[in-house]
Amino acid sequence: MSLEPVRAHDKVSLRDRDARPPKGLDADDDTLERKVDKLRDRLATLQEALYAESKQSLLVVLQARDAGGKDGTIRRVFSLVNPQGCDVHSFKQPTPQELAHDFLWRAHAVVPAHGMIGIFNRSQYEDVLAARVHKLVPKETWKKRFDQINDFERMLTENGVTIVKFFLHVSREEQRVRLLSRLTDPTKNWKFEAGDLKERDLWDDYTHAYRDVFRKCSTKWAPWYVVPADRKHARDYLVLDTLVSTLARMRPRYPKADPKTLALMKDLREPG
Amino acid sequence: MSLEPVRAHDKVSLRDRDARPPKGLDADDDTLERKVDKLRDRLATLQEALYAESKQSLLVVLQARDAGGKDGTIRRVFSLVNPQGCDVHSFKQPTPQELAHDFLWRAHAVVPAHGMIGIFNRSQYEDVLAARVHKLVPKETWKKRFDQINDFERMLTENGVTIVKFFLHVSREEQRVRLLSRLTDPTKNWKFEAGDLKERDLWDDYTHAYRDVFRKCSTKWAPWYVVPADRKHARDYLVLDTLVSTLARMRPRYPKADPKTLALMKDLREPG
Repeated sequence: MSLEPVRAHDKVSLRDRDARPPKGLDADDDTLERKVDKLRDRLATLQEALYAESKQSLLVVLQARDAGGKDGTIRRVFSLVNPQGCDVHSFKQPTPQELAHDFLWRAHAVVPAHGMIGIFNRSQYEDVLAARVHKLVPKETWKKRFDQINDFERMLTENGVTIVKFFLHVSREEQRVRLLSRLTDPTKNWKFEAGDLKERDLWDDYTHAYRDVFRKCSTKWAPWYVVPADRKHARDYLVLDTLVSTLARMRPRYPKADPKTLALMKDLREPG
Repeated sequence: MSLEPVRAHDKVSLRDRDARPPKGLDADDDTLERKVDKLRDRLATLQEALYAESKQSLLVVLQARDAGGKDGTIRRVFSLVNPQGCDVHSFKQPTPQELAHDFLWRAHAVVPAHGMIGIFNRSQYEDVLAARVHKLVPKETWKKRFDQINDFERMLTENGVTIVKFFLHVSREEQRVRLLSRLTDPTKNWKFEAGDLKERDLWDDYTHAYRDVFRKCSTKWAPWYVVPADRKHARDYLVLDTLVSTLARMRPRYPKADPKTLALMKDLREPG
């Protein structure tokens, strides 16, 4: 069971039932957990080679509604990855300095360097999602951004950055349960923001905006994946499986030392 | 068995035998590995609270000779830590732009934000180590830097940054074995630099420079720990144990929601 990328121009369904785990991943059993563990190991192994090679990088874009599981996905999917080879950037409300630039400026500044996995917790897509839903910019501005994002992402992929984009799709009911638990569980209080309820009221507007994003910006060079995310183990499995396939296709290779360097071995053969 | 910080003005011994694991940690057995696993879990738990609290940060400085194990320590010690709450910065040869500023400029720019663990892989100390040993700056310049570093670090600690500094101490023989393995093991070739052998020739100069660093810059507010690092499990244990005690003393607390926010629960009690 693997995710398929959204095909360009496809109308993606984002019904509540699409958030349920697909067949074969719908039991939170030990088998699934063992598979997840195995993929985690595999991801860590591939990342070490990517880091050593240092010629290409992987950019992982994570988008979701509030309580969609972005933070948990990062913690659980990347938990075995060497933090030295992995950069996470959270895109918050733009600062005045960021607003004084084009909307891609702040994203470009934190694109992962060669050898790195970069994770965007929210991303440039906020500028065609929140910015659109809250009418922060006029329609003629955000409409142009789909192409601008596509061009930007193509340029990146032509320069050694592989891009994978995930939408963690949770149902309205699962979001309710998770938001409520942020209020009842004292170790989760800090995650709750009063604004979350206002965003929840805009559910359908976001659905609409997300569907446009997938339709217009799931490209051959930077595909979108819609992840059924109501259940954490299935979600982790699907994200990990996609990342591992992507990295395997990138074929990172450990660089070999040249003969001149290897000749230095003789100086190290004896103690001293 | 825990590490003691270097006491100010102490002359630290850096003999080869000081790199051996201390009694009680000298068997690479399952007991030690289980203890290391437990500390890793504890570190991850404390970090989650630090991140949630978002009022203070932890800066971990790692210094070592070549092949001293900085990369491996980062991978193994922080492997369970959420990458979202953890930034690693490697200090390489300064760029022209960095050289056009005071030596602390590039370090200040990457000090961990509130809530974060920041790891410096090498650090501002290179400017009293490599810079001194290779005579990149005159003595009257680097001599002033010890106090400048102390003042900088005190300012940081007075502003919510807790600092711990580790020197991973390996013996000359262990360094030889590790450098050789970089040449014989194809997955390690990429780590070998011809310059490593030149650095090895300067062993005593570095010993001298490091001893000055510990003597002058192990302060109450930013202590240095010398870690016997010839054996990886013992090294990991000692670093983890020190980090866990330090974080526990910082007492990170999950923020509580205010009553007004908690009142919003009623809107979430029913499906819809």
